Amino acid sequence: MRKLGLPALLVTDESNVTWLTGFTGDSSYLLVGPKLGVLISDTRYTVQISEECSGLDVEIRDARRPMHDAVATVAAAARLGALGFEAHSTSMATWERISGAISGSDGSPELVSVGMLVNELRSKKDSDEIAEIRLAVHQAERGFAAMVSVLEADKTELEVAHELEHLMRRFGAEGPAFEPIVAVGPRAALPHARPGSTRIGESGFVLFDWGAKTTGGYRSDLTRVLLTSKIPPKLETIYGVVLKAQRQGIKAIRPGATLKSVDRAARRVIENAGYGKFFGHGLGHGIGLDIHEEPRLSPVAEGVLEPGMVITVEPGIYLPGWGGVRIEDDVLVTRDGHEVLTSVPKRFEDAVVQIA
Amino acid sequence: MRKLGLPALLVTDESNVTWLTGFTGDSSYLLVGPKLGVLISDTRYTVQISEECSGLDVEIRDARRPMHDAVATVAAAARLGALGFEAHSTSMATWERISGAISGSDGSPELVSVGMLVNELRSKKDSDEIAEIRLAVHQAERGFAAMVSVLEADKTELEVAHELEHLMRRFGAEGPAFEPIVAVGPRAALPHARPGSTRIGESGFVLFDWGAKTTGGYRSDLTRVLLTSKIPPKLETIYGVVLKAQRQGIKAIRPGATLKSVDRAARRVIENAGYGKFFGHGLGHGIGLDIHEEPRLSPVAEGVLEPGMVITVEPGIYLPGWGGVRIEDDVLVTRDGHEVLTSVPKRFEDAVVQIA
Repeated sequence: MRKLGLPALLVTDESNVTWLTGFTGDSSYLLVGPKLGVLISDTRYTVQISEECSGLDVEIRDARRPMHDAVATVAAAARLGALGFEAHSTSMATWERISGAISGSDGSPELVSVGMLVNELRSKKDSDEIAEIRLAVHQAERGFAAMVSVLEADKTELEVAHELEHLMRRFGAEGPAFEPIVAVGPRAALPHARPGSTRIGESGFVLFDWGAKTTGGYRSDLTRVLLTSKIPPKLETIYGVVLKAQRQGIKAIRPGATLKSVDRAARRVIENAGYGKFFGHGLGHGIGLDIHEEPRLSPVAEGVLEPGMVITVEPGIYLPGWGGVRIEDDVLVTRDGHEVLTSVPKRFEDAVVQIA
Repeated sequence: MRKLGLPALLVTDESNVTWLTGFTGDSSYLLVGPKLGVLISDTRYTVQISEECSGLDVEIRDARRPMHDAVATVAAAARLGALGFEAHSTSMATWERISGAISGSDGSPELVSVGMLVNELRSKKDSDEIAEIRLAVHQAERGFAAMVSVLEADKTELEVAHELEHLMRRFGAEGPAFEPIVAVGPRAALPHARPGSTRIGESGFVLFDWGAKTTGGYRSDLTRVLLTSKIPPKLETIYGVVLKAQRQGIKAIRPGATLKSVDRAARRVIENAGYGKFFGHGLGHGIGLDIHEEPRLSPVAEGVLEPGMVITVEPGIYLPGWGGVRIEDDVLVTRDGHEVLTSVPKRFEDAVVQIA
């Protein structure tokens, strides 16, 4: 913020507020600067704030007082010449109300968009955060192994997804990092399939995309394909291409590597095998308090990797009507390269499971 | 939209997109008008869109092409003189990118904020939606009754919250409508308490705030306080005040009643009993595809109730350090009054439960 020459920033992104203050509620903004820090919240959270971030100044509003009014009060008290705001997480409606309320007061501050400043700081994890992500990986992997051990052919995708959530909690997760994907055969051609009533044994393979959220709020994100019966010959070829692409993507991860170049390293393998048009999404994304955060790995992403970033690497090939394969691991950027945090086996022969 | 004189609206609110199209994925916008309807999405959703809303025109982008570029293409093809957008769900960053991309094209449309037009349409439910909400209530109530039947003193808030989620699914829910609140004794003073490691038997009462989400995506939202052992004398008084306030609030619900007047009817009871400053939040909110939607019942809300609206009525009294009581039901506004959709008993004597 000193670099930007701003005396204060209005943080409206919920995960940014949590990251900066420790407060885990919602509907609250933080006005923060080199010389001030005020959490603007409401009476539902008075006690929780005193527990989670005692010592922080707070402005508490009740149901009679709208948020923009509380923001204007705090900004006026701080006598700010300028006020940064987060354009990605401030809606047009909120911005109009806040700028209206602020410009009504004396010596109203100039509003300046600061982009994703806090999100960029969050993208580089410290050792406590990395430990939390390792824990989220552990919970997801233990839950997954337990789920595989009880997998049955006549269970539906939705039943298995619930079982997986339950088992991750069994190993300490607060809950799933996101609604798990369990997609049988042709359903796996939908990169974001919702689990439904298809039974696990209805096709020869199942795609799982799942993760755990720790009680500290950090998340993991993995994808594996399991082979449950007669293997379609095409599957082994596609699986091999995706796995090779994923390994090339991971290999490209080191400090200073451009986000584009990592995407390129994986995408090239899939394109060379003739499946380029069946891999439409980006290669990966940061994980942390949010399941999708900075940085993004894609053909159009700008920026480079830095030590402490934790990113997913998840290439896929999706053939409509037939099915799809995606393989995803979580990777930490280290000082001199990378460390793969996830360890569920991923060789083709590892993917074969016995189901009842 | 004809009333507004707009040829098209860009819908960015995810639940509004779902409500208008049936599409349940994310990261997708809808350009809709009297003469056009184009869903702007990406390759992850191609198959899902063809299943959920076949017949709708689509503009699919891949990882190389940003959303604002796809929006500009669709808008240019439609040759629009003006384009409405949803100010509450369009971030400043998105708006800047879209307006930049659009104004670059020939005959660029004027961008006009339309407020919460679609959200207001959504606030009045049709018979299919009311049936879905009834189902969500049923799933929540069956799950809750089953949870109470297995409640044990040495279980933690978090374990019980997970058990409740599991049991709602047992009765057909896709999942919880939101992360359930299970708050023992003093924890109940936090209106939005997160379930933690406190054991159910550690105090004489427990607050539950929970709901179910159907596979169709509709939600229910209830709150009850259960008395598990020696009842603090103060509790019966406070419970009585909250219950009376809640009944007065429900009684005030009819078509044409102002949102303010319903809040007032309940809040007056709590104020008259001397607890006004311990009820800081609004009286209730609409439920549907979102857990919090239009209309809002609060001292500052504008507007009136209309048939088909489904709202929560949830007054509470929260005493920091001691505990809190909130009682919440879901109420349908009918042609000539209201119907309470929820039926978990709520008299003080009903709240007493035996736990092992």
